[in-house]
Amino acid sequence: MAELIRTGVSIEADLLEKFDKLIAKRGYGNRSEALRDLIREMLVSEEVNDNKQVVATLSMIYDHHRPDLSTKLTEAQHHHHNNVLAATHVHLDAKNCFEVVIMKGPSGEVKHMADHMLSLKGVKHGKLVMTSTGKDL
Amino acid sequence: MAELIRTGVSIEADLLEKFDKLIAKRGYGNRSEALRDLIREMLVSEEVNDNKQVVATLSMIYDHHRPDLSTKLTEAQHHHHNNVLAATHVHLDAKNCFEVVIMKGPSGEVKHMADHMLSLKGVKHGKLVMTSTGKDL
Amino acid sequence: MAELIRTGVSIEADLLEKFDKLIAKRGYGNRSEALRDLIREMLVSEEVNDNKQVVATLSMIYDHHRPDLSTKLTEAQHHHHNNVLAATHVHLDAKNCFEVVIMKGPSGEVKHMADHMLSLKGVKHGKLVMTSTGKDL
Amino acid sequence: MAELIRTGVSIEADLLEKFDKLIAKRGYGNRSEALRDLIREMLVSEEVNDNKQVVATLSMIYDHHRPDLSTKLTEAQHHHHNNVLAATHVHLDAKNCFEVVIMKGPSGEVKHMADHMLSLKGVKHGKLVMTSTGKDL
Repeated sequence: MAELIRTGVSIEADLLEKFDKLIAKRGYGNRSEALRDLIREMLVSEEVNDNKQVVATLSMIYDHHRPDLSTKLTEAQHHHHNNVLAATHVHLDAKNCFEVVIMKGPSGEVKHMADHMLSLKGVKHGKLVMTSTGKDL
Repeated sequence: MAELIRTGVSIEADLLEKFDKLIAKRGYGNRSEALRDLIREMLVSEEVNDNKQVVATLSMIYDHHRPDLSTKLTEAQHHHHNNVLAATHVHLDAKNCFEVVIMKGPSGEVKHMADHMLSLKGVKHGKLVMTSTGKDL
Repeated sequence: MAELIRTGVSIEADLLEKFDKLIAKRGYGNRSEALRDLIREMLVSEEVNDNKQVVATLSMIYDHHRPDLSTKLTEAQHHHHNNVLAATHVHLDAKNCFEVVIMKGPSGEVKHMADHMLSLKGVKHGKLVMTSTGKDL
Repeated sequence: MAELIRTGVSIEADLLEKFDKLIAKRGYGNRSEALRDLIREMLVSEEVNDNKQVVATLSMIYDHHRPDLSTKLTEAQHHHHNNVLAATHVHLDAKNCFEVVIMKGPSGEVKHMADHMLSLKGVKHGKLVMTSTGKDL
């Protein structure tokens, strides 16, 4: 467990009151934990902009009746197997699949792979989320 | 397979040229496919705002040495088992785990569950992405 | 000036170091100021979701040769004059104008006005940003 | 006025129906105009990522009782006068000001200027929005 440092912060009384209410609503146990999360969020958004190493999740909805699509998606993932950590597949209904691919690599490379999968015919919608490898958090 | 309708669109010559270049770079096979993706993206962003039924992916990085954390995350997911479809766990390094939880439900409910998990001590960073159930795409 | 309260926060040593580096790079004078900004950002994102009163900026690029467009934009703003605080117009080049409209009102109403202006022919691109009225910050 | 090209698009019948409903709700006059807006949005998001020339709007809420703050904001804008096109100031209430600064330049440079202004003490909240110069749209 990392060493904890205690530091003091000055906050306007009414701002602190609103903050306390919101973090209680979101389920935080105390202020320090909520503030650490805000700090980490700030660091992550910086990392992603700098083409640093990221961990990313690509969420896609696709039509599994589309011929060859799942083959193409699998091929794309194997082609970049160094960057693909895992994939989860959920059957939403008779027609729609939801697939989540977890990737790792420089943010530019990860974005390029995601663009490729999202451009395939039959992939109806998708979103890429990039976050940190956790090493610097 | 849904019935396809052919419709005509008027686009400025230079805008069309730039569009063609960008979709080629992203790997699209033709204009129709790229335009359908843009339309679906527009529909999804509308759905998410309206507290409609969504499918969502919560990506979290956490420290697996934190006592009880994985138990708490599992409990949270079981508590809302009607909304949780699947979870994938990746070991990033000796310390950091990456967990992706796939959820389904009204967007407000899904957001509330995500807030709860993200507020747990030891969850370093996370992002929620909401997309469509695919039924309306 | 609001009363300041001093509170203590526990932060991991290496997280604090990275935070200090990043806020120095962004130009913050001290940790308290940076943490207060993070707290306010969290509160604002909550307000915007709740259809509360917001202040918003709509930034648009449009082609000023398009007949009647500036008249239509002006009409739209006057029609909702209770919600429009100010507008600034910049001439980008011989063809393109950049117009920024500052609005105030419930977030749903503001979004609807923005949608209307963005849908006008000749408005090439635009983005709406919603923030707080400042009263609760 | 740029030359218009007519191109055909194939769209699933039910997707087209939903699209037509949404664009009517948002106020679009016809499909072509809505599709062109979606294309431009896609091109702009690409430009912003590539450190190309952008036009940007920084919206800030600040406390005008804070000594020297407006002087510092003005100085920051003059220091980068090549990048600052205009600023608009709105008095929200007895305490809060809303200031919108319109900037132009490479996206990295613009982001750096915004970071600096947002880090000043008394600036409560702010958001930067980057869009295109319009030349490529």
